[in-house]
Amino acid sequence: MAKVELPLIAVNFKTYPQATGERAVVLAQHCESVAKEYGVQIVVAPQTPDLFRVSRAVDIPVFAQHMDPGDPGRYTGHVLAEALVEAGCAGTLLNHSENRMVLADLEAAVRKAERLHLYTIVCTNNPMVSVAAASLRPWAVAVEPPELIGTGVSVSQAQPEVITGTVEKIRAVNNEVGILCGAGISNGADVRAALNLGAQGVLLASAVAKSDRPAEVLRDLAEQVVRE
Amino acid sequence: MAKVELPLIAVNFKTYPQATGERAVVLAQHCESVAKEYGVQIVVAPQTPDLFRVSRAVDIPVFAQHMDPGDPGRYTGHVLAEALVEAGCAGTLLNHSENRMVLADLEAAVRKAERLHLYTIVCTNNPMVSVAAASLRPWAVAVEPPELIGTGVSVSQAQPEVITGTVEKIRAVNNEVGILCGAGISNGADVRAALNLGAQGVLLASAVAKSDRPAEVLRDLAEQVVRE
Amino acid sequence: MAKVELPLIAVNFKTYPQATGERAVVLAQHCESVAKEYGVQIVVAPQTPDLFRVSRAVDIPVFAQHMDPGDPGRYTGHVLAEALVEAGCAGTLLNHSENRMVLADLEAAVRKAERLHLYTIVCTNNPMVSVAAASLRPWAVAVEPPELIGTGVSVSQAQPEVITGTVEKIRAVNNEVGILCGAGISNGADVRAALNLGAQGVLLASAVAKSDRPAEVLRDLAEQVVRE
Amino acid sequence: MAKVELPLIAVNFKTYPQATGERAVVLAQHCESVAKEYGVQIVVAPQTPDLFRVSRAVDIPVFAQHMDPGDPGRYTGHVLAEALVEAGCAGTLLNHSENRMVLADLEAAVRKAERLHLYTIVCTNNPMVSVAAASLRPWAVAVEPPELIGTGVSVSQAQPEVITGTVEKIRAVNNEVGILCGAGISNGADVRAALNLGAQGVLLASAVAKSDRPAEVLRDLAEQVVRE
Repeated sequence: MAKVELPLIAVNFKTYPQATGERAVVLAQHCESVAKEYGVQIVVAPQTPDLFRVSRAVDIPVFAQHMDPGDPGRYTGHVLAEALVEAGCAGTLLNHSENRMVLADLEAAVRKAERLHLYTIVCTNNPMVSVAAASLRPWAVAVEPPELIGTGVSVSQAQPEVITGTVEKIRAVNNEVGILCGAGISNGADVRAALNLGAQGVLLASAVAKSDRPAEVLRDLAEQVVRE
Repeated sequence: MAKVELPLIAVNFKTYPQATGERAVVLAQHCESVAKEYGVQIVVAPQTPDLFRVSRAVDIPVFAQHMDPGDPGRYTGHVLAEALVEAGCAGTLLNHSENRMVLADLEAAVRKAERLHLYTIVCTNNPMVSVAAASLRPWAVAVEPPELIGTGVSVSQAQPEVITGTVEKIRAVNNEVGILCGAGISNGADVRAALNLGAQGVLLASAVAKSDRPAEVLRDLAEQVVRE
Repeated sequence: MAKVELPLIAVNFKTYPQATGERAVVLAQHCESVAKEYGVQIVVAPQTPDLFRVSRAVDIPVFAQHMDPGDPGRYTGHVLAEALVEAGCAGTLLNHSENRMVLADLEAAVRKAERLHLYTIVCTNNPMVSVAAASLRPWAVAVEPPELIGTGVSVSQAQPEVITGTVEKIRAVNNEVGILCGAGISNGADVRAALNLGAQGVLLASAVAKSDRPAEVLRDLAEQVVRE
Repeated sequence: MAKVELPLIAVNFKTYPQATGERAVVLAQHCESVAKEYGVQIVVAPQTPDLFRVSRAVDIPVFAQHMDPGDPGRYTGHVLAEALVEAGCAGTLLNHSENRMVLADLEAAVRKAERLHLYTIVCTNNPMVSVAAASLRPWAVAVEPPELIGTGVSVSQAQPEVITGTVEKIRAVNNEVGILCGAGISNGADVRAALNLGAQGVLLASAVAKSDRPAEVLRDLAEQVVRE
């Protein structure tokens, strides 16, 4: 499994039509090109049915958007770690605001991913929940105030205290977990602000996935990461 | 999209290790071989991350194990109809006992599948719930008493009244929906009993997916369907 | 248990501050006064912690806002039929849009309520889901297009086809179930329109529960029911 | 609101027939008698519809078995903090294994309870989840390995490392939160073992609620707490 490094740009494809099926492959290839061009870490998170076709097509890490806990056998319709590994995934988002998890399931999923060497990015909604998530020892936490998701108003510029609060609270108990931020991130200035506030990367979706020129958007983001 | 016909054998791969990743492809190919050998309709339902690789590898219909309602855009981690179509699916199971759905979501998912020309098999737990499901006008209903799932004790032999009750109640209001039965189906005798009771096919999982010789098991099942 | 009759006005107290604790008792007493004054059937649905104190204080039927299926023993935090009976309830709402239920649980809850002689009103969101709900044989179905709930735009005037469609589809399969309508019902004209379209009553909340003069609002509603 | 003190015996009434309706009042009165007799802190957690009648009848603290986050208005069928206060509750259990909560909702519920001066006991399943729960700053955490719940095999005797691990991990980050243990606690020896391992109380259910002589069972438990 390729190593995933910080700082990082994580692109959530959500269920955008522009990022579904073969178009998910094309978008992932744009991400790969910019990652290589700038030497920055970009990871992509396509829909579950697209994981296999995307992971075969690109060399950058492919993350699932969600993973269920539980061991193989039953669980019809669940997305287990074993299947993600077989589909070529390097990791998974967990607890996205559009797919919140029960605390015990979240912990079980982080442990399961750990055993199967999958990277985990746990999404959270505020500093205190971020600390709780960090105490489960995932690979990274991504704080995203839900009210800003999809707005184009970036958390790093509109609510900088969410990022600084999260960084401060997490670092008091855990020095190793990665800290990302999301919600409203759409350009290089947002990335710059996030990194300046102590985040080690960003999780974003619509600004890239819905753009007519995703490579341009990605270059603008990547430039700020390179400056790090 | 290939037409799916009744009577039918539907094989749910659940999350069995023997039916994950490349082994899902191999199992689907066994299903395809037997389907062609006997001229019977067999459909396979692999895990969501395996749908694309399986649908590329076989000509028999590939069903998802679950589908969420909702339209493209948000819904991180959800499995939408649009992505299933792109992954080559012919249809989807809905409301499996390991993945029950809220009534309004189930109806929305059936409507959405209809618009995208996906076949739907709605799983139910008893005759009265089967009627409710049938009234939503899916393509088929599969009644599976949860207490028999995975036991090897077949519903068609242990609880024949569940099948006859379901057939009778559904036919009083809906002449078109397919009626399948599941739970504990493991051999030709179980299939024969099911068909004799008025079912138009079976939904099964472990007997095929966990077998060392799945093709043999499938031939035993297929022979009874051919006799129909 | 007092008999509950159609036509009917059902007042959902939701979690309005004006309808919590002792204020729930006062509001229920207003409902009782108007019910007696006009000789119309009014039922009240206060929050679960308020059921006992309200049922002791009034003679009109008290409904829970939700009930879980399941038998006594485990289920910490669940609201079982047995406890509702002990709290003096005559029945329960089920599957409200703010508390949707899994289809199999909904059926189990209707059966359980039946055994304990509790009246059930199953909320639904459109005509087809209403038919599915009706096929489970609850005491009544209340169709409420979610997009109109709490708007003051009444379903009976804005979307009359939802009511006529529901009445027609349900009556094709079930002559006994009560048919109510909700969403945006706020005055006598809305009630009149609903009854004219074939509904046998209304389910409403904010227009009564948030009013400074709930008795006046109720009288306006009751007058139309009396005219029936 | 009466102050709740540690060490503590918390009695979860679950949905036992012996602890429903008027029998919940009687059981709570037994708890109150023993609490006064021994001068130990006992709290009771009856079902939601019984909260009002129990809190009126006894002076010991009454806890809900579950509370939903969310502010008054919508949320039909939800159990909000405001209604618990009106029903005379001193606090609430949260995240019981039979009623697990989404992480973000759990945090929101703890904050809401804090604002309304309700005590919170968050149930957890292992040491790591206990730390996550403790980082949300509830009043107390109760660790209960789900596989022991209702077995009569006590966590304090069968899995002492769960308690010591929980105490150690929590105290590394939070010196103020109470630490209880549950699962299989049924007699004084179990309580003694729990207290010796560093727990500040126990959460139990069936041993008291299903007993023919609950007061005797409670005395056996209380004696060990007094010795503390």
